[in-house]
Amino acid sequence: MNKMVAVILSGCGNRDGGEIHESVTTLLAIKKAGYDYQCFAPDIMQHRVVNHLTGETVSEKRSVIVEAARIARGKIKPLSDFQEKDFAALFIPGGQGAALNLSTFGVDGPNCTVNTDVTRAVTVMHKAGKPIGALCIAPVILGRILQGVCVTIGNDVNVNAKLHQMGAKTKDAACDAFVADENNKVVTGPCYMYDASILDVANCAERVVQKTLEMIKS
Amino acid sequence: MNKMVAVILSGCGNRDGGEIHESVTTLLAIKKAGYDYQCFAPDIMQHRVVNHLTGETVSEKRSVIVEAARIARGKIKPLSDFQEKDFAALFIPGGQGAALNLSTFGVDGPNCTVNTDVTRAVTVMHKAGKPIGALCIAPVILGRILQGVCVTIGNDVNVNAKLHQMGAKTKDAACDAFVADENNKVVTGPCYMYDASILDVANCAERVVQKTLEMIKS
Repeated sequence: MNKMVAVILSGCGNRDGGEIHESVTTLLAIKKAGYDYQCFAPDIMQHRVVNHLTGETVSEKRSVIVEAARIARGKIKPLSDFQEKDFAALFIPGGQGAALNLSTFGVDGPNCTVNTDVTRAVTVMHKAGKPIGALCIAPVILGRILQGVCVTIGNDVNVNAKLHQMGAKTKDAACDAFVADENNKVVTGPCYMYDASILDVANCAERVVQKTLEMIKS
Repeated sequence: MNKMVAVILSGCGNRDGGEIHESVTTLLAIKKAGYDYQCFAPDIMQHRVVNHLTGETVSEKRSVIVEAARIARGKIKPLSDFQEKDFAALFIPGGQGAALNLSTFGVDGPNCTVNTDVTRAVTVMHKAGKPIGALCIAPVILGRILQGVCVTIGNDVNVNAKLHQMGAKTKDAACDAFVADENNKVVTGPCYMYDASILDVANCAERVVQKTLEMIKS
């Protein structure tokens, strides 16, 4: 049985890239469950760079894969190299990088597009009947690609409305809980869509990972 | 009883700043143990910036506290603001930032100096009889400041020899284990001083945090 899963990182920092706590606790939950991971990121520039101390957008330019390599300790591949046959499941942690680098949801809302490498990875895994887990704001990517999928995106009315406009269904879940769409083999958890603690986030990531891995065909 | 502890971060990325897995799993272990944390970092520029995808040092300049704010999600204070009376314990996760930003160990070895804010924080906590936990390469900071302290720094003969030259004692410990110096109230764990997994690192951080918190006077 293939015990290797893929994780798509979107940078390194919640305001302009991958949310670090969600990314790290996803990797940790995968190893805890007896699986191993390969990290991927699109080889593109970040939509923006934010000074995380002041919250200000700065003029610097940073690469998504180069910054994501900080979380992956250098062990990361360009998402264009992703091949479905090598992986039993796919995970996408959250952070603004999911809404600004992996997709344009943070700018275009319900009219967003998704990065072509991300679209390909999600589509081929879904067609192969392999499960996908996503955290925080990352479920918008699945809502865009997988017509009619049911996800959780926290309880913000506006964000939920945008998902509905894209044709997705949404369900509320607590910050440490998850929603499973068994038909689409999609598992999502809200994490920092709420004012959550790192402990809530770790519990949410662990539950999403466990449920997703349970959906793998043995 | 004061349930607040301080964590000194040294940037965001193992090659030029705070090791991300060690930093995140330390914060998580603190919350798991029922404590809360305040993150600090010195308000200085990083010694270097490394492209974590290629391993090359680049010409960019980055600030330790601004990058560490990515791990802390913006909730971080300059270490010059640290006051011993507010905290029950102090933690220093590892990464090259501990050896290049918080101290000069990575350049000067046994002749290293420690950043003045870091020295002050460690010294006042130690004088107040409050425990200090450190991971990976960060114990070199304690070896420099606390004469005769016993720490673990992994099994690299050269690194251990440098600690001995500074007057510190060392003990071997597995990548997920710890060494406690009960007299000095110092607890250290090697984490990524070995070719460890994120699971080993999380277990090590959790054990170091638990043992350190047990040393707090009730």
